[in-house]
Amino acid sequence: MIPRYSRPEMVAIWSPETKFRIWFEIEAHACDALAELGVIPKEAARAIWERGGAAEFDVARIDEIERETKHDVIAFLTHLAEIVGPEARFVHQGMTSSDVLDTCLNVQLVRAADILLADVDGLLAALKKRAFEHKDTVTIGRSHGIHAEPTTFGVKLALAYAEFARCRERLGAARREVATCAISGAVGTFANIDPRVEEHVAAKLGLEPEPVSTQVIPRDRHAMFFATLGVIASSVERLAVEIRHLQRTEVLEAEEYFSPGQKGSSAMPHKRNPVLTENLTGLARMVRAFAMPAMENVALWHERDISHSSVERMIGPDATVTLDFALARLTGVVEKLVVYPDNMLKNMNKFRGLVHSQRVLLALTQAGVSREDAYRLVQRNAMKVWEQGKDFLEELLADDDVRAALSEEELREKFDLGYHTKHVDTIFRRVFGAA
Amino acid sequence: MIPRYSRPEMVAIWSPETKFRIWFEIEAHACDALAELGVIPKEAARAIWERGGAAEFDVARIDEIERETKHDVIAFLTHLAEIVGPEARFVHQGMTSSDVLDTCLNVQLVRAADILLADVDGLLAALKKRAFEHKDTVTIGRSHGIHAEPTTFGVKLALAYAEFARCRERLGAARREVATCAISGAVGTFANIDPRVEEHVAAKLGLEPEPVSTQVIPRDRHAMFFATLGVIASSVERLAVEIRHLQRTEVLEAEEYFSPGQKGSSAMPHKRNPVLTENLTGLARMVRAFAMPAMENVALWHERDISHSSVERMIGPDATVTLDFALARLTGVVEKLVVYPDNMLKNMNKFRGLVHSQRVLLALTQAGVSREDAYRLVQRNAMKVWEQGKDFLEELLADDDVRAALSEEELREKFDLGYHTKHVDTIFRRVFGAA
Amino acid sequence: MIPRYSRPEMVAIWSPETKFRIWFEIEAHACDALAELGVIPKEAARAIWERGGAAEFDVARIDEIERETKHDVIAFLTHLAEIVGPEARFVHQGMTSSDVLDTCLNVQLVRAADILLADVDGLLAALKKRAFEHKDTVTIGRSHGIHAEPTTFGVKLALAYAEFARCRERLGAARREVATCAISGAVGTFANIDPRVEEHVAAKLGLEPEPVSTQVIPRDRHAMFFATLGVIASSVERLAVEIRHLQRTEVLEAEEYFSPGQKGSSAMPHKRNPVLTENLTGLARMVRAFAMPAMENVALWHERDISHSSVERMIGPDATVTLDFALARLTGVVEKLVVYPDNMLKNMNKFRGLVHSQRVLLALTQAGVSREDAYRLVQRNAMKVWEQGKDFLEELLADDDVRAALSEEELREKFDLGYHTKHVDTIFRRVFGAA
Amino acid sequence: MIPRYSRPEMVAIWSPETKFRIWFEIEAHACDALAELGVIPKEAARAIWERGGAAEFDVARIDEIERETKHDVIAFLTHLAEIVGPEARFVHQGMTSSDVLDTCLNVQLVRAADILLADVDGLLAALKKRAFEHKDTVTIGRSHGIHAEPTTFGVKLALAYAEFARCRERLGAARREVATCAISGAVGTFANIDPRVEEHVAAKLGLEPEPVSTQVIPRDRHAMFFATLGVIASSVERLAVEIRHLQRTEVLEAEEYFSPGQKGSSAMPHKRNPVLTENLTGLARMVRAFAMPAMENVALWHERDISHSSVERMIGPDATVTLDFALARLTGVVEKLVVYPDNMLKNMNKFRGLVHSQRVLLALTQAGVSREDAYRLVQRNAMKVWEQGKDFLEELLADDDVRAALSEEELREKFDLGYHTKHVDTIFRRVFGAA
Repeated sequence: MIPRYSRPEMVAIWSPETKFRIWFEIEAHACDALAELGVIPKEAARAIWERGGAAEFDVARIDEIERETKHDVIAFLTHLAEIVGPEARFVHQGMTSSDVLDTCLNVQLVRAADILLADVDGLLAALKKRAFEHKDTVTIGRSHGIHAEPTTFGVKLALAYAEFARCRERLGAARREVATCAISGAVGTFANIDPRVEEHVAAKLGLEPEPVSTQVIPRDRHAMFFATLGVIASSVERLAVEIRHLQRTEVLEAEEYFSPGQKGSSAMPHKRNPVLTENLTGLARMVRAFAMPAMENVALWHERDISHSSVERMIGPDATVTLDFALARLTGVVEKLVVYPDNMLKNMNKFRGLVHSQRVLLALTQAGVSREDAYRLVQRNAMKVWEQGKDFLEELLADDDVRAALSEEELREKFDLGYHTKHVDTIFRRVFGAA
Repeated sequence: MIPRYSRPEMVAIWSPETKFRIWFEIEAHACDALAELGVIPKEAARAIWERGGAAEFDVARIDEIERETKHDVIAFLTHLAEIVGPEARFVHQGMTSSDVLDTCLNVQLVRAADILLADVDGLLAALKKRAFEHKDTVTIGRSHGIHAEPTTFGVKLALAYAEFARCRERLGAARREVATCAISGAVGTFANIDPRVEEHVAAKLGLEPEPVSTQVIPRDRHAMFFATLGVIASSVERLAVEIRHLQRTEVLEAEEYFSPGQKGSSAMPHKRNPVLTENLTGLARMVRAFAMPAMENVALWHERDISHSSVERMIGPDATVTLDFALARLTGVVEKLVVYPDNMLKNMNKFRGLVHSQRVLLALTQAGVSREDAYRLVQRNAMKVWEQGKDFLEELLADDDVRAALSEEELREKFDLGYHTKHVDTIFRRVFGAA
Repeated sequence: MIPRYSRPEMVAIWSPETKFRIWFEIEAHACDALAELGVIPKEAARAIWERGGAAEFDVARIDEIERETKHDVIAFLTHLAEIVGPEARFVHQGMTSSDVLDTCLNVQLVRAADILLADVDGLLAALKKRAFEHKDTVTIGRSHGIHAEPTTFGVKLALAYAEFARCRERLGAARREVATCAISGAVGTFANIDPRVEEHVAAKLGLEPEPVSTQVIPRDRHAMFFATLGVIASSVERLAVEIRHLQRTEVLEAEEYFSPGQKGSSAMPHKRNPVLTENLTGLARMVRAFAMPAMENVALWHERDISHSSVERMIGPDATVTLDFALARLTGVVEKLVVYPDNMLKNMNKFRGLVHSQRVLLALTQAGVSREDAYRLVQRNAMKVWEQGKDFLEELLADDDVRAALSEEELREKFDLGYHTKHVDTIFRRVFGAA
Repeated sequence: MIPRYSRPEMVAIWSPETKFRIWFEIEAHACDALAELGVIPKEAARAIWERGGAAEFDVARIDEIERETKHDVIAFLTHLAEIVGPEARFVHQGMTSSDVLDTCLNVQLVRAADILLADVDGLLAALKKRAFEHKDTVTIGRSHGIHAEPTTFGVKLALAYAEFARCRERLGAARREVATCAISGAVGTFANIDPRVEEHVAAKLGLEPEPVSTQVIPRDRHAMFFATLGVIASSVERLAVEIRHLQRTEVLEAEEYFSPGQKGSSAMPHKRNPVLTENLTGLARMVRAFAMPAMENVALWHERDISHSSVERMIGPDATVTLDFALARLTGVVEKLVVYPDNMLKNMNKFRGLVHSQRVLLALTQAGVSREDAYRLVQRNAMKVWEQGKDFLEELLADDDVRAALSEEELREKFDLGYHTKHVDTIFRRVFGAA
């Protein structure tokens, strides 16, 4: 998490202030439940809310206490006692640090997921808008970086829309994975705390009670969460790479928006580089990498060890902040993407007519030529276009074997572009529900 | 995928024979749809099913053709033509290789997922049986590898059950991710093939039509699939590590079943090593590693490149075969696990009474001692147990400051084991629906 | 390791036959040393070499024994006893299985490294040849996929040469990392075997004695080995990606050799796809992924656990076989790469004169214009070339502010291509020692 | 990089202040060389050193300029001009941003490597001291977590010493990998800058000139650097895991130092947890994870793209700061590790005499019993110790088949502990050069 690639709303989730506020709420909600159960006095619970709710926690003071105790939750509770006074002894009754830490982490991850969901929604809206705008903008489809057959730029964007719609589903599932609360005490047996406290705190925080925890909330949940972020980052990378390709000098079918004051190169003033999408490519590598330690975190020893903690202190903020930034940046790139339909056409026609080769192949087989022969006939004419810059249709018209099977009119009909876009509406209906 | 860590049913999914059979079915179902649409003769479709359905495809012959054409689907179609005869020219009309390859891969992954789901079911059954068997087997819970408070061995297994129940959910979601079919032709525009062909083939194969494909089925689906396998493998590792710990010489609370003929060491005949769970630890590392290239596969160039293919030829079989083997092995370990309740008790009592320290702490605070003072009182007596082997209860009884707050009776009551297990039924009801 | 991406020489290293032969040699060399030390009879050592040296080990028989004993080395020793007779009881005296397994693995990795070193040498030779062939073939250098300034195709290949020369160094270091031998007995104390046995076996096998082993050879060595393979694979990917870019339809500056019978697409006969380099991209992802479990293997428990074993049974062959195949394939691609110097020139001139923008910028500053002003002057003319297809030199000549600083002659001189290639010889001398 | 796991010296390397100072030095050294070559006036070079050398660069001002230009090096140069005045126009002549950025990154990595080398030296010193202190402290060696045969605690530490001595070698190699300088201009052709400038700057900064760069310094160097850090982190994890095991309640052979004020648990005052080594386990996961994006960074497009940059802005600081912290923490743990030799003996004797089983096995075979029979004899007695707590020696003495081969005296001699430690001096000599 570095400022250059961070947005304040997500960063705020991971601030010490936010963390201590969530800790306080967990403790205070637990006090309410404990008071309701008669374990602690109701006035104590009320006092805790009143004095703690009004207070600003002093991060520096908590850090100071932690330096002595080497234990962060004890440091916080000591500071809380400084604020709340004698009633503070009723706080944390029967609980263990992990009850606070793990429930807090999940609250933070859920909030992070909510921002990411909003990010994806923003991206989907941008993609949809641009997809409809370019639904009929014909462009060459490429496999292996080589011209294949025509498609439309709108279909490219519809594909991205469908992909991020899937990412949205996955993110929703990932959010549910971590939306749990554990207030189960040491080793998770509820020996010192009634399970109803957990149920109360969970309900108040919008979480589900963890069915069985062992002091810690099981880390397979978090592994799944971060793995999902890694997959979403990989989809960010895919679209970023697509745009980088389209902006190549020789292709130039689309371009990141280049603001007036911007400089592409300290040495070469003419350069307009796809630096945002290149940046996204790198950010995706990072978010993806965080999936690995998250998975290694699953195999904690017995009821818990704390090896997961340092990992999560890093990837909790880093993965969510970086992906939030990346999604927002990608949304901006899509919204402002400069599209060059003319270049799309020019590129498509670079190899004169070659993109229609498959139609000719099919026509030949339907006219009774064996598949093997048809392939050979088409290929020998295609190679002349590829290597000598000839016009494909003219070569076919001049090939006696081809003409033996197909008339001039039949051949010319195979070079109609509309043929390739006739199902774009179908695709749009599938993706967007309407075309 | 190596024979030592493979089971035949999963291996069979990835054999050339299975693959060519699925290819044939995709092509033949497509022919049915094409015939229905009037694109090819109905008799051709019928002939293809009849002759191809009856035939054994000759893998060696297909390989031979591929060596010349350097294209696997063309090689298969050529061989199919050798079997079917002239009607073969109607096969693959308007389709592209990826239609066959990608749909086939997804059929294989779905079948693999079905086996994995059955594996997880088997594991869940074993865990449930052993969990109820040991619901009340008291054992020490450990955090940081250090004795914490009592729990039961059944709770440990209930935790594993809940974890693998989550894995089952995730696996179901992963299965849905890849249960799609694409018959959309070059660059996915349906230019040469009616979308209804895709719908027909999908329905016949139990798949959903891919809303928008670009020659390839988007690889974010497969990234999510393999990432999920990595998470499940991490849960396998967690339980394996737990068992390895329990089998340590100094702990010996549980042990992998050791068959009569087995030898633990060529040098030391007394050794009984947790080799199955150690093996599972290593296998988990592999399955987890496969998530990374699967995620890198997402960013294909433009409408497709084939860089994903070599990765999938490896991890398709390797990840599924290895995880299948691991789940089955883990199930066997759980089913036959030798549990030593006596050792559990002996270990728990190693530090005489120390596991009850928190209860004493709570009792002191409830008796009006400040949290800080109570902590100090408990710790100074606990340290004598830890360092000098004293009995915790006796030390407390002899501590005047403690006695000023708590009577002998009150102190003795804090050393009741049943206190820690009183909510085991609650936990079981949450996990299994019944206790 | 799958046949499609395997070469026989590397595969042979990992066959059971090779493994058992190496096991035998380790045991037999150890017997020699033991006999020399008087621990076992010299005739026994001789008999073991004679009968074992002549024998073919029966892999199926060994597997059969292992199924009962569940221990591979014991199974091998039992089979060896069937061959050698009563003297077999002197085999493996004071040794432990890991002495055999770990030393064997290192012998295999050293042999694999030797093949990989030869592979890299082959690649270096191909790169050098093509680099000198195209030392003066001018092409546009690109940053961010955007035209930057001219370079030569030879310099591109010199860069790859320098990179793989570094890889060769790293591979040599990696080979040294794993060229160790351990015959130190259970937990590595030499309690039951004299350290001189280890020294003898090491010398005979071309290895160094492991200074301190604990039954196993420390796995940080293997982590470093596989991490190095991952880095080399990443360099393979870099060059593969470069070639894929050059073969793009719009660029077409170089192309993988396309053999006469080859078919690029089942649907589109004109296609010539960079399938080899795409394949290399995928293979690189796999080799890279194997570094991660190799690193996780380092943290074995106490003196050893066997979790590393399943990982190494997979990545030992998979990483080395795949990288061997990839290096050989890349060498073939480089050797036969079809280069299109005409297209390189055509592409370079796409934006008429723009590649000379930096020279003009420098000339302006040297003529006394401030850097900021010079940048603005150059950029405003560059943008007209970029956006309206104007000729850069003509625009500059017509710009009064530019002309106030630079004469026509001075401007024209800045458009000389030779200016950019004048240090190619320097670069070649640095890389190859000669130009 | 988070404060909790950071040390100031390493953090300082990555501060904006340090970065801009290095940028300045690169530019100023280049000016010296340019002045020497007569390209710019000597007085200009002098003025740049004088005014820039004395100035504090204003990070906030540079950030402000960057927000407009969206280019960090231009922003810096603009600010430098504000400080230096008109001579600033001679700065950066013929250079490109990457010349500054990449050379600076390598200076930072080299400085980071120097700190890490010092860290490893500190760790080695601590390991050596404790190894000699415990050279003869007998402890049980364990394979698979199961008691194997005796070794000494000093040997365990000697192993760690040898491992980190290897890490030191690797780190030295990694340092050399990145100790290069590139001042080669756009696309690396030296078109606008004489190679002697690069040579001068390299010499002044203690670097080697990069033989061939393409605007960027090739990223295989950095991949190797970060992969090496990942391997070292894995060795940190290994030793951390060893200590965590030794501190387990049931083992308690060694313990992290526990300071007086420290609290192990908010709930359980008796707990002393190995939290430092658990923390190291997590930190190792992070450093290891960073190897993956570093490897993905290698395959930049053509002469450069900037996708590597965001990755390096994160992992440059994160990997070096985290590993520095981890090595320092591990050194502290080793230095202050509390060792319990009595517990080591107690644990070793848990299974009465069983650790001597192999010696008995060997004695039986040497007495003429076949290996298979000897194994069976030993195992049947060993199992009685394991399962019924019998004494191994007594069981053997009472076994007629054993006694038929070995006398009582011969048997008793096999139970001598000194037998296992007789080669400890040999091992120490190998590792430390002296015993």
